[in-house]
Amino acid sequence: MNRNEITEQIVAARLEKGLSWQELADAIGKPVAWTISALLGQQPIPAELGKVLVEMLGLDQSVVPVLAAPPMRGGLPTAVPTDPTIYRFYEALQVYGPAIKELIHEQFGDGIMSAINFSVDVQKKPHPSGDRVVVTFDGKFLPYEWVAAES
Amino acid sequence: MNRNEITEQIVAARLEKGLSWQELADAIGKPVAWTISALLGQQPIPAELGKVLVEMLGLDQSVVPVLAAPPMRGGLPTAVPTDPTIYRFYEALQVYGPAIKELIHEQFGDGIMSAINFSVDVQKKPHPSGDRVVVTFDGKFLPYEWVAAES
Amino acid sequence: MNRNEITEQIVAARLEKGLSWQELADAIGKPVAWTISALLGQQPIPAELGKVLVEMLGLDQSVVPVLAAPPMRGGLPTAVPTDPTIYRFYEALQVYGPAIKELIHEQFGDGIMSAINFSVDVQKKPHPSGDRVVVTFDGKFLPYEWVAAES
Amino acid sequence: MNRNEITEQIVAARLEKGLSWQELADAIGKPVAWTISALLGQQPIPAELGKVLVEMLGLDQSVVPVLAAPPMRGGLPTAVPTDPTIYRFYEALQVYGPAIKELIHEQFGDGIMSAINFSVDVQKKPHPSGDRVVVTFDGKFLPYEWVAAES
Amino acid sequence: MNRNEITEQIVAARLEKGLSWQELADAIGKPVAWTISALLGQQPIPAELGKVLVEMLGLDQSVVPVLAAPPMRGGLPTAVPTDPTIYRFYEALQVYGPAIKELIHEQFGDGIMSAINFSVDVQKKPHPSGDRVVVTFDGKFLPYEWVAAES
Amino acid sequence: MNRNEITEQIVAARLEKGLSWQELADAIGKPVAWTISALLGQQPIPAELGKVLVEMLGLDQSVVPVLAAPPMRGGLPTAVPTDPTIYRFYEALQVYGPAIKELIHEQFGDGIMSAINFSVDVQKKPHPSGDRVVVTFDGKFLPYEWVAAES
Amino acid sequence: MNRNEITEQIVAARLEKGLSWQELADAIGKPVAWTISALLGQQPIPAELGKVLVEMLGLDQSVVPVLAAPPMRGGLPTAVPTDPTIYRFYEALQVYGPAIKELIHEQFGDGIMSAINFSVDVQKKPHPSGDRVVVTFDGKFLPYEWVAAES
Amino acid sequence: MNRNEITEQIVAARLEKGLSWQELADAIGKPVAWTISALLGQQPIPAELGKVLVEMLGLDQSVVPVLAAPPMRGGLPTAVPTDPTIYRFYEALQVYGPAIKELIHEQFGDGIMSAINFSVDVQKKPHPSGDRVVVTFDGKFLPYEWVAAES
Amino acid sequence: MNRNEITEQIVAARLEKGLSWQELADAIGKPVAWTISALLGQQPIPAELGKVLVEMLGLDQSVVPVLAAPPMRGGLPTAVPTDPTIYRFYEALQVYGPAIKELIHEQFGDGIMSAINFSVDVQKKPHPSGDRVVVTFDGKFLPYEWVAAES
Amino acid sequence: MNRNEITEQIVAARLEKGLSWQELADAIGKPVAWTISALLGQQPIPAELGKVLVEMLGLDQSVVPVLAAPPMRGGLPTAVPTDPTIYRFYEALQVYGPAIKELIHEQFGDGIMSAINFSVDVQKKPHPSGDRVVVTFDGKFLPYEWVAAES
Repeated sequence: MNRNEITEQIVAARLEKGLSWQELADAIGKPVAWTISALLGQQPIPAELGKVLVEMLGLDQSVVPVLAAPPMRGGLPTAVPTDPTIYRFYEALQVYGPAIKELIHEQFGDGIMSAINFSVDVQKKPHPSGDRVVVTFDGKFLPYEWVAAES
Repeated sequence: MNRNEITEQIVAARLEKGLSWQELADAIGKPVAWTISALLGQQPIPAELGKVLVEMLGLDQSVVPVLAAPPMRGGLPTAVPTDPTIYRFYEALQVYGPAIKELIHEQFGDGIMSAINFSVDVQKKPHPSGDRVVVTFDGKFLPYEWVAAES
Repeated sequence: MNRNEITEQIVAARLEKGLSWQELADAIGKPVAWTISALLGQQPIPAELGKVLVEMLGLDQSVVPVLAAPPMRGGLPTAVPTDPTIYRFYEALQVYGPAIKELIHEQFGDGIMSAINFSVDVQKKPHPSGDRVVVTFDGKFLPYEWVAAES
Repeated sequence: MNRNEITEQIVAARLEKGLSWQELADAIGKPVAWTISALLGQQPIPAELGKVLVEMLGLDQSVVPVLAAPPMRGGLPTAVPTDPTIYRFYEALQVYGPAIKELIHEQFGDGIMSAINFSVDVQKKPHPSGDRVVVTFDGKFLPYEWVAAES
Repeated sequence: MNRNEITEQIVAARLEKGLSWQELADAIGKPVAWTISALLGQQPIPAELGKVLVEMLGLDQSVVPVLAAPPMRGGLPTAVPTDPTIYRFYEALQVYGPAIKELIHEQFGDGIMSAINFSVDVQKKPHPSGDRVVVTFDGKFLPYEWVAAES
Repeated sequence: MNRNEITEQIVAARLEKGLSWQELADAIGKPVAWTISALLGQQPIPAELGKVLVEMLGLDQSVVPVLAAPPMRGGLPTAVPTDPTIYRFYEALQVYGPAIKELIHEQFGDGIMSAINFSVDVQKKPHPSGDRVVVTFDGKFLPYEWVAAES
Repeated sequence: MNRNEITEQIVAARLEKGLSWQELADAIGKPVAWTISALLGQQPIPAELGKVLVEMLGLDQSVVPVLAAPPMRGGLPTAVPTDPTIYRFYEALQVYGPAIKELIHEQFGDGIMSAINFSVDVQKKPHPSGDRVVVTFDGKFLPYEWVAAES
Repeated sequence: MNRNEITEQIVAARLEKGLSWQELADAIGKPVAWTISALLGQQPIPAELGKVLVEMLGLDQSVVPVLAAPPMRGGLPTAVPTDPTIYRFYEALQVYGPAIKELIHEQFGDGIMSAINFSVDVQKKPHPSGDRVVVTFDGKFLPYEWVAAES
Repeated sequence: MNRNEITEQIVAARLEKGLSWQELADAIGKPVAWTISALLGQQPIPAELGKVLVEMLGLDQSVVPVLAAPPMRGGLPTAVPTDPTIYRFYEALQVYGPAIKELIHEQFGDGIMSAINFSVDVQKKPHPSGDRVVVTFDGKFLPYEWVAAES
Repeated sequence: MNRNEITEQIVAARLEKGLSWQELADAIGKPVAWTISALLGQQPIPAELGKVLVEMLGLDQSVVPVLAAPPMRGGLPTAVPTDPTIYRFYEALQVYGPAIKELIHEQFGDGIMSAINFSVDVQKKPHPSGDRVVVTFDGKFLPYEWVAAES
């Protein structure tokens, strides 16, 4: 069974067992955003954690080593996402991406926000005009640097 | 002169005059992220603010009404961004997008983060292992609701 | 069984059982357009309604929790639809989309029609030169607003 | 000057002269949605109306015969629209398109809504939870019929 | 079994049984071009005809109601066809499409040839330099008309 | 001036001079469909005919040799046409293309309709339910043959 | 079993049985290039030859009529080939395609090399700097001719 | 002036001066296929040859050093060519590409035909059923070899 | 079983058996980079090596001849890779590709680095600011040469 | 003048002045690979270096501040490169990319090679069978780490 097939099983099993993502995250003591992305096939899951999750979800233990390997990442089925909840982030990139780029350059100089040394967080925050979804992308600043290994 | 041509002039004029985005934002009393996205062609700029910006940048006042109209939005030249600073956000969407979707649904129910009732913020935050770029996407939660106008 | 596979089963079962969409909608007391989009995999179906539909269609009750989860939306197999009945709406967007945008801006200001706080309706209306398909897209106006959660 | 170049001139001239689309439509006694789509290059404009519009906008009268010819239609710069106001209609098609197709078939039989014998309307309708954008796509039903010219 | 799977079965069964398309068309008294497109999944097949075809092809009668439903149309596996016999028509569209458009406008005014009220015919015609394939696309002229349902 | 620029001039000049395509075709004694496709950049125009057309349209005689060269063909700006009048032929290909392929094979054997040894014709034909656009694609049958030059 | 599935079986069976393409071609007395393209799903294989091949490869005789039908051609899984051996021909087309076109026009006039009345050959030729792959595309010249069937 | 602009000038100048490609090739003593591909922007043209060509074509001598630089290659405006004369080679690749690959592997082993150590030739060859276009792609065989520079 | 299916089995079997790529490479005495690419379906594996690997991985010996055939190469599921580890190389190509091209031309003249007579190596090298991934692409220089087989 | 236009001027001016990339790099004391990528629009060029380069190339000093700003990166005109010299690196990614990924994971664990803290080098290395192009991609290893800014 490959990683994609395991992911499909996880998605169905979680719903059938009525487990929340938070419960799965708590069981392994990991942040919930990381846990979901891992269970959706985007992170390797250390074997000792994988065993716990696989048992909770009622899957076969033989999938544990596959879950533990760095996966081929990329979780969107199309280059431009069609799901509205995900699309809004793509839209924000279309409208605000160049501005974010300029702000990073003005505040930090030439470089990028790492998406590897990185965490993401979703918070529900109150507001008089209605609750807000506050998503924080938090990555290490990496300056463009011309560095070579020492020979 | 259409909006794209005005944007090109703005980009060059700002560099030649040595103005920071922050100075331009301060001059009109607006958040800097909004100001940049507006000057990059993604927001209508009210005429009274447009006049100030156009004068600072040394452009022709005839562009003010074009700046004041809601633009055709979408600031990325390709569906998948090639610039590394912007690409990292697309990559984060590939790796964490489905997880963010699940988290929104688990915390709020079925719905989306608005990208219209929305603000974005970029902060430089210290960390022992190096400064971090913290980008906040902050949008109103919109639940899927089947509503019709009253007839 | 994932949501796509369930949708395929629903499509076939409805035809084999000779049920109309209207009968399915009536059975759960929901608008027919919503019911179809839900059964075609685009809306979560509350478990108590899911049970009714699953029984009518003769499917396995184990699919009920999968139907109840917010789905990965996007029901067109290609970016540009090939089915003529659906294509005409895409064509109308090609020909009238920019005009609709301008009209929304002229009547409401800068903003959008929500596709989340939204309903759609299809009516058959008579006309001397032949019956007409009248499709109403009805969404809440959302003005572009720069709002941030309170800290 | 080709039609695209004329359209660009129209867009800029309207903003500089401060004319509303409604004023332009009223001047030629045509529906405003049709008038906008025509001025944005999607409809031929009869010469006697073209003369009025060209004069109001301060363009050269030599463009009148080009405006009067059936244009090469298609007003979106990309296959999937990036502008959020237009995108919402594409999104509605992704989420509700197959349902609209099924409803047309259930109510009318096999066939389509014409996008040629067609009109579109945008209305602002009040609702306790906020004004609504109500867009009506109104096209003649065309049943699939296998017809051949008489020989 | 979904429509695509049924189509695959039909294609194989016809070859294995050695039936010509003409024989299948004759058996149901329908034009051969319509019959083929229907059996290839592009037209609903009325149940009484479907029963005849299904029996001739040795398929299961349970597919009859699926064949009777209006299908999701679009029979080409790629946007630009790769099969040379089909590609030539796409090529003719590349080379002559704009000319056909101009001719329709010069002879009929602004409008289109319907592909719904439509028939297609393929004839073998002799010519001194070799037989010719003569394909007739025959659709009702639909003028662009701005019509709304009566309220 | 390259061929595309000449085509743009031809399109504008014809409208400004109020010439019909038929008049241009008559002036050079060629079929009107061929004449339009040639003037839209899809056929080489022999110099003696080019001179006549260039004079009628008021263009510079220096374009005659460019018109006389075999052009880089392909007259659609996108792989899937957006103009509704042209799109209907693409749609007919989506719905009936595989059927046309089967009919050609059943009537002629394995092979294609040539789009090179080819003519196209558009006729207006009456019908009780409204005039019809009858477009004939007429190409030589070319059987698949494995032939090699003689060495 | 459809043609694609049969092709997959052929590919595997040939390797498992250790048969060379040349042996298969010799068994049916056909050129080897034609034989391979046929076995890879690009040519109809006459039933008497199909029987021989099917027996050599150990497949089921029921596939013979499917092999004998003109296939839906097009053997590349992506529009731009990724396999280096095939890509080089695409690259040669990128670099030399327009030159080949000009040479055909200069030597033959306006027209094309047929890919239907066509053969292809691969030869190994010696050269002091290393063996060369010499691939010959040999197709009948087809002049652009405006021909119509006689009515 | 960049290389693309120079190519456009060359194309127009050659036609206006009535020079054949063969004459241009003869003037510099190079194969005609190479000469055309070079003049169409696909090969660097040594300065001493560039001077001759530029003079014959009446261009400015300042373009000679640009012509002498290795160009950014790739002469097709779209990934799938639309011009019929060029498309036939792409079609041959679709239908025979996998067979050519197999033949190269059967005759030479694992490897490719070089498109760099390469020449192409177009010949007109007689045949009882009509002249043939014989295009030879002639490239050095390069076996897959795992070789590393010596350290 | 086709090559893709075998690759999937290899990927899973390696993880389940806990074998490192290095161990597999050592067992057959081949460079590890070559061994991985071969096991991932990109190189033919000589039968005597294939037998060793198949045994270590616990696969069926019947796959050995399929592994030994030159495969249809191309190991990325999308034209632009989505996996971040692979994407960085694509990004480096976007940012440095044209510079690498210029450097090759300045140092070697017009030509390319072969990707066939080629090896790749990944080294871990220390650096005060952190370990570095040093990937060496090492290919024979192939000058553009116009060579033809001797006739 | 925007960055793209400046890049075009640089490319032409360098050729016309007969300057090598190495000479330009030496003049500013920077690695040649960095210098080329910077002059091709992929790196910001500090003003004091920009002045030197602009003078050598004979450009206007007003471009210096534009050269000094972080550019919108991405130097390939198409998603899949068409130039053979650049394509070979894309091909190497197709064939060896997944293997490189596995090697990085086996040697370093889950993570990536940075393309930001990065340098590239091109060396000409001798080999008995011909000179080799040795391109080194040298980037800092970045492990996947879930890190958040301190609040």
